[in-house]
Amino acid sequence: MDLESVKRFLEGMEEKSSKIETLPHQFFDPFIMQGVQIDLIEPGRVVCSMKVPPRLLNSGNFLHGGATASFIDLVGSAAIYSAGASSVGVSLEINISYLDAAFLDEEIEIDAKVLRVGKAVGVVSVELRKKKTGKIFAQGRHTKYLPVSSKL
Amino acid sequence: MDLESVKRFLEGMEEKSSKIETLPHQFFDPFIMQGVQIDLIEPGRVVCSMKVPPRLLNSGNFLHGGATASFIDLVGSAAIYSAGASSVGVSLEINISYLDAAFLDEEIEIDAKVLRVGKAVGVVSVELRKKKTGKIFAQGRHTKYLPVSSKL
Amino acid sequence: MDLESVKRFLEGMEEKSSKIETLPHQFFDPFIMQGVQIDLIEPGRVVCSMKVPPRLLNSGNFLHGGATASFIDLVGSAAIYSAGASSVGVSLEINISYLDAAFLDEEIEIDAKVLRVGKAVGVVSVELRKKKTGKIFAQGRHTKYLPVSSKL
Amino acid sequence: MDLESVKRFLEGMEEKSSKIETLPHQFFDPFIMQGVQIDLIEPGRVVCSMKVPPRLLNSGNFLHGGATASFIDLVGSAAIYSAGASSVGVSLEINISYLDAAFLDEEIEIDAKVLRVGKAVGVVSVELRKKKTGKIFAQGRHTKYLPVSSKL
Repeated sequence: MDLESVKRFLEGMEEKSSKIETLPHQFFDPFIMQGVQIDLIEPGRVVCSMKVPPRLLNSGNFLHGGATASFIDLVGSAAIYSAGASSVGVSLEINISYLDAAFLDEEIEIDAKVLRVGKAVGVVSVELRKKKTGKIFAQGRHTKYLPVSSKL
Repeated sequence: MDLESVKRFLEGMEEKSSKIETLPHQFFDPFIMQGVQIDLIEPGRVVCSMKVPPRLLNSGNFLHGGATASFIDLVGSAAIYSAGASSVGVSLEINISYLDAAFLDEEIEIDAKVLRVGKAVGVVSVELRKKKTGKIFAQGRHTKYLPVSSKL
Repeated sequence: MDLESVKRFLEGMEEKSSKIETLPHQFFDPFIMQGVQIDLIEPGRVVCSMKVPPRLLNSGNFLHGGATASFIDLVGSAAIYSAGASSVGVSLEINISYLDAAFLDEEIEIDAKVLRVGKAVGVVSVELRKKKTGKIFAQGRHTKYLPVSSKL
Repeated sequence: MDLESVKRFLEGMEEKSSKIETLPHQFFDPFIMQGVQIDLIEPGRVVCSMKVPPRLLNSGNFLHGGATASFIDLVGSAAIYSAGASSVGVSLEINISYLDAAFLDEEIEIDAKVLRVGKAVGVVSVELRKKKTGKIFAQGRHTKYLPVSSKL
């Protein structure tokens, strides 16, 4: 392996411009969620949908794995909250299986169903599907600690 | 549970401005990686470091769980590549344990060590530490399929 | 912490008798699966059921976490096989969320649904439920590599 | 796919004899742990070793994935206990990456290092290695809830 090419692989991820460094505090949530529609909120279930936007593509031109993980984090958190959790809590564990690619402008659904919300712990399963075919392209789970106080 | 507050929780993640919608193709990688330094590249190991920037904070003002997941994705991929993988491959599975919070301007290290790279599958373990204390604040693994052709 | 008590905790897991050492080759599968009923086999889906037996209890007198993991391994493998996989394959990754306890003689269902079976990789989601109430007490996923030849 | 062969695959896991049904309560721990040696107990770390016994082989004649998961469960629990956890706790999440096969009579090491033990949650990383070569053949994590009382 030519280690120079690994260096170029990593350096290629950075923009030359410095405009990224000036992005505001807490830009991550809107960066991911801008354009997401809320389709359903029930106790223990939240479904959202979105057209895959240009900004969330990876170098292979499909939805970035980090974006998928972030949807599981954020929409999963909303579902745990909807189940009556005493707080939004803090993440303990997130896992994701990547099954297929979702491409630019594809309509996707993010379907978060709570598996359990107890006094201290909430767990949610999140499925990402292509709206047109119903095909699952990612599935994950998110486990949160729901403290009365905020100490793990 | 007041389901209206779940709706506000989700809607609160969106910016009012429309500038996010105009961000360019493949903005995700630089959004995460801008400002990351490469400290070490060896066959099977990549270590990077970064000062937690404002843009990657969550609503609790610490490093976003989706950003941590993205570091495990991207720096882990570089480590698998450095181990002589025939291609960068596609993600099969990412998992993350969140152990502690990393706050604004904290120096963090992202340490990716390959566990196995074979003909078809690569697995990397990634540890995120606070540079000052060496304390691990997240650990994850990333499993990639390394196709000769690109079909799963 | 009294490290002696950790030693006693570990030593307490061993039987005094030596009959375990004489158990035959490949006893693991029948040890887990003896008494399991096959309720449904369809392409991509396998459902089994079982009454939690004494042997699979943990020290808290509910179904052992290692037994739950083994059901996800074995029934999940059967489901991937039912989806037309070219081989039973080898495990790449198993994960499990434990949500509740299943006690002695409770009827449980193990429901394995394939998320994807491709040429090289299969992924299955497995849900364990209490038959009486339908309540999910564990959920996991199992990712297998399905080699044409047997080299990872 | 011939669904009959899936049925035979599952039925082939059962013994014809009925001796398994008569195994005593809580046989799971000794079934896994019999023959395991304790090599090291420190606060936050437990290392055990074992020669892969016939009973824990799978149908491919290497260490069963369910046995590996069980080691991560049990030795991981001991390590969390050694770190001063107020209780042994209950499992929230276990994940395992399978990297290689360990064959009959191979000496293996099970090395459990605590990543975090707080008031309510403990996380441990567990590595399984071949003693002769040091090669990692599985890595996992185990997250436990450590209740003061026993309610999740």
